Amino acid sequence: MAKVAVIVGAASKHDKDGTDVDLPPASRWGLGGALCLRFAQGGFHVALLGRRVPILDGVAKEVQAIGGTATCIQCDVEDNASVKSAFDAAKSLGTVEVVVYNVAPPFPPGCDFTNLPMAEVVDPEYFTRAFNIGVSGCVRCVREIAPDMMERGRGTILLSGATMALRGGPKFACMAPIKAALRSYGQAMYQTYAPKGVHVAHVVIDGVIESPNTKAWADKVMLQDPADLADAFFAMHEQKPSAWSYEMQLTPCRESVGMRL
Amino acid sequence: MAKVAVIVGAASKHDKDGTDVDLPPASRWGLGGALCLRFAQGGFHVALLGRRVPILDGVAKEVQAIGGTATCIQCDVEDNASVKSAFDAAKSLGTVEVVVYNVAPPFPPGCDFTNLPMAEVVDPEYFTRAFNIGVSGCVRCVREIAPDMMERGRGTILLSGATMALRGGPKFACMAPIKAALRSYGQAMYQTYAPKGVHVAHVVIDGVIESPNTKAWADKVMLQDPADLADAFFAMHEQKPSAWSYEMQLTPCRESVGMRL
Amino acid sequence: MAKVAVIVGAASKHDKDGTDVDLPPASRWGLGGALCLRFAQGGFHVALLGRRVPILDGVAKEVQAIGGTATCIQCDVEDNASVKSAFDAAKSLGTVEVVVYNVAPPFPPGCDFTNLPMAEVVDPEYFTRAFNIGVSGCVRCVREIAPDMMERGRGTILLSGATMALRGGPKFACMAPIKAALRSYGQAMYQTYAPKGVHVAHVVIDGVIESPNTKAWADKVMLQDPADLADAFFAMHEQKPSAWSYEMQLTPCRESVGMRL
Amino acid sequence: MAKVAVIVGAASKHDKDGTDVDLPPASRWGLGGALCLRFAQGGFHVALLGRRVPILDGVAKEVQAIGGTATCIQCDVEDNASVKSAFDAAKSLGTVEVVVYNVAPPFPPGCDFTNLPMAEVVDPEYFTRAFNIGVSGCVRCVREIAPDMMERGRGTILLSGATMALRGGPKFACMAPIKAALRSYGQAMYQTYAPKGVHVAHVVIDGVIESPNTKAWADKVMLQDPADLADAFFAMHEQKPSAWSYEMQLTPCRESVGMRL
Repeated sequence: MAKVAVIVGAASKHDKDGTDVDLPPASRWGLGGALCLRFAQGGFHVALLGRRVPILDGVAKEVQAIGGTATCIQCDVEDNASVKSAFDAAKSLGTVEVVVYNVAPPFPPGCDFTNLPMAEVVDPEYFTRAFNIGVSGCVRCVREIAPDMMERGRGTILLSGATMALRGGPKFACMAPIKAALRSYGQAMYQTYAPKGVHVAHVVIDGVIESPNTKAWADKVMLQDPADLADAFFAMHEQKPSAWSYEMQLTPCRESVGMRL
Repeated sequence: MAKVAVIVGAASKHDKDGTDVDLPPASRWGLGGALCLRFAQGGFHVALLGRRVPILDGVAKEVQAIGGTATCIQCDVEDNASVKSAFDAAKSLGTVEVVVYNVAPPFPPGCDFTNLPMAEVVDPEYFTRAFNIGVSGCVRCVREIAPDMMERGRGTILLSGATMALRGGPKFACMAPIKAALRSYGQAMYQTYAPKGVHVAHVVIDGVIESPNTKAWADKVMLQDPADLADAFFAMHEQKPSAWSYEMQLTPCRESVGMRL
Repeated sequence: MAKVAVIVGAASKHDKDGTDVDLPPASRWGLGGALCLRFAQGGFHVALLGRRVPILDGVAKEVQAIGGTATCIQCDVEDNASVKSAFDAAKSLGTVEVVVYNVAPPFPPGCDFTNLPMAEVVDPEYFTRAFNIGVSGCVRCVREIAPDMMERGRGTILLSGATMALRGGPKFACMAPIKAALRSYGQAMYQTYAPKGVHVAHVVIDGVIESPNTKAWADKVMLQDPADLADAFFAMHEQKPSAWSYEMQLTPCRESVGMRL
Repeated sequence: MAKVAVIVGAASKHDKDGTDVDLPPASRWGLGGALCLRFAQGGFHVALLGRRVPILDGVAKEVQAIGGTATCIQCDVEDNASVKSAFDAAKSLGTVEVVVYNVAPPFPPGCDFTNLPMAEVVDPEYFTRAFNIGVSGCVRCVREIAPDMMERGRGTILLSGATMALRGGPKFACMAPIKAALRSYGQAMYQTYAPKGVHVAHVVIDGVIESPNTKAWADKVMLQDPADLADAFFAMHEQKPSAWSYEMQLTPCRESVGMRL
């Protein structure tokens, strides 16, 4: 029976349809795409979950191009039924050994990283929905798979996090609390599931990921190669049970948000 | 013009109508009540905000009994219009110098501290609503008052937090993430508002507060006296601007969740 | 019987003999001097411990000028016998209720904050001696007084710390590890002594203290008023046992090393 | 030219001469031995540094038994000249690409993990010497190799740490501060060296390592397999520069000191 890795948010950072062929495939499709490629290389059948199936299809073709196998499954993490049905489909493909929750809420309308709202201007309805996507959505996925993993005494659940999960900042009032909450939920999972053989880990991405959107920043900061990040996710999956980590922070060597005094 | 302290969640832990006269008034009405009494003693007119006005009235009578003045104002933190109208009412009483956000989401139906759901059993809809109450509700209050405080270059915003805000635990999967998110939101506020003279602080309550509900636990753990906690909140308000704290953890001397190795 | 506060390092930052009369007395003599003044105002007889008695005498005069009483006692924290004899002298003055360990190792020869050695240039012998002063010196003091405090079930031990105790930095390779170690030693003390009624607390000074040396920096950063810091130390001493803090970070409102994302 | 890994403290936990043949070689010689075996498997010539060469010889034979090559070098980390001469010898073997500082101070006389001195009973002279071994000894090694690594723009320095580096505990008053200081020194190194291509990382061992001393504890706690820990050290060395970690905590899945709420 095939071993399956489910990547929720398999094309998360993609916004240019993979057509930026100056970038390697891993960067062209964001961290989601790089994770699909890495777990395929590691011998997994990859289940790509996301809202926009046509974009997932582009990533799936990259997986096939390196000799892997992949299945695209529509999944809206805000919708209980959609998540259930997506995980049912994923489970029908083999044994789900790995789930990566690589989902980030969208920016508020009209915003990107340069103009996020200050604390008093955050829209409460946006904020609540961001939590629903970023954290409750993770619960919707976890409840479909954690019981199976605990019964088998084996499995890996990885969460894509960010430095702002560790400490809030003035420009991240609407985003950091969501990431802090996901990290906290992961700590509850780790402590509950680890003794039963299921490894939960929160990966703190402490930099700017190279992508079609960000490649122009390379003259300002050292970008993070999604393939390098995906290697680190895979290394977490391969840790031995007597030496598991709950958390790993990944920082580009020439910059460090998380370390600076 | 009167200086006003707004206590949002002024009777938060109260669930026995203040009739437990074996306890001192501060404990009888929970931390919310103790905060009202302490800020009244400190010379503030106290605005008591909460959903259940008849219970707030009980606390207001205690405030009056020690020579203070108080106004009860209905406020539902899930409702934009209710929050706006409550703060308009509070602002009409004088200069709002202090706001304490002392609101915690209700337990999931059928639950108390002894039987909270494990991570995979958390109800996503409950979870999202808990965030809406515990964090988005704070935004609804902050946006009504932070701009005024920044314009005056003076003010204090205090958040009631808990040890679980610092680290998740297996039994707190549905609560710790909300507290972690509130703390993170407070960090964003601190960094934005402190340079403009507005002191934001997150108070980590690291123990079990004495109340009608918990007084029977006194033979198992050292309970925290709500009046002592309220003193610590007031001390945060009195810190001098060249030596402000963003956070203070309050631990009963004979126990420590947050410190243990 | 008089209650006594022992300030170890009572003139720690002083280096201009208190002759800079443009500064208020608290700033003129550094944090050590401000602590002496504050505890004197709080009703304590103050025992000033330090290596250079003539300088302590200057601080003692300031204490007397505000109506307090003070005794200067020679104490070299590197010397077991000197510390024992200094504490014997302090204990003969009354009941020692408070000890503040406000001692920092000297800079390496030829260095100040602007040119501290990078990690590979730290002199190992300097480093070991800095630990002997900054941490082992604290043990030499603590062992003279903690047993008495535990027997009485009452007492306060305060440690002067700094942001670099929380996280190392490239320019603080020779200093941050000493402050991190003192903080850790304090955590051991807290957990051992708090259940016996002795309050240990580590105060994180997160800024530049105003002094004869630093007053010129005021146009670059917001300086911390030593009197404000001393108020915060005193507030820690006054916390109620059901709501004690082990740590408090004190930050000037317009700057923040410790909070920035 | 051979690539060389220097393991300082190559037989650190060994105290039964490797004669406990019920244990696999990695466990028989402690974490130091397991690190030697792992880096030998990874293609390194291993330089074993320690005070007791006859014991290092036993580890070197294990390395040779798996087809690796090793050189034993006498090194006393308290002695500047000894460290210089040991690193000169190691550098003559090839290019030193990796240094692991796996040195822990000895227990106080008459003590083991069950009866370490409470805070006020720590001997200040022992404490200062423990820092000299645990932290200044690291400086003595680092200064012999970091300049070469920075010049080459490449190298890895790994520090063996422990949970008590993160938070002090009542029973670890004489040990936790040393580990906290080493971690802080590593943070200074990371921030200074990472931008120059040298990866420094602190590995937090969050459990009891299996060894001749501890194997009897296996019915009480889940022991950590030194070979699993050594795999994690090696994985840190293999991280890609756009995704480096400063720190990794390694926890046995069934226990967790560092995570518990």
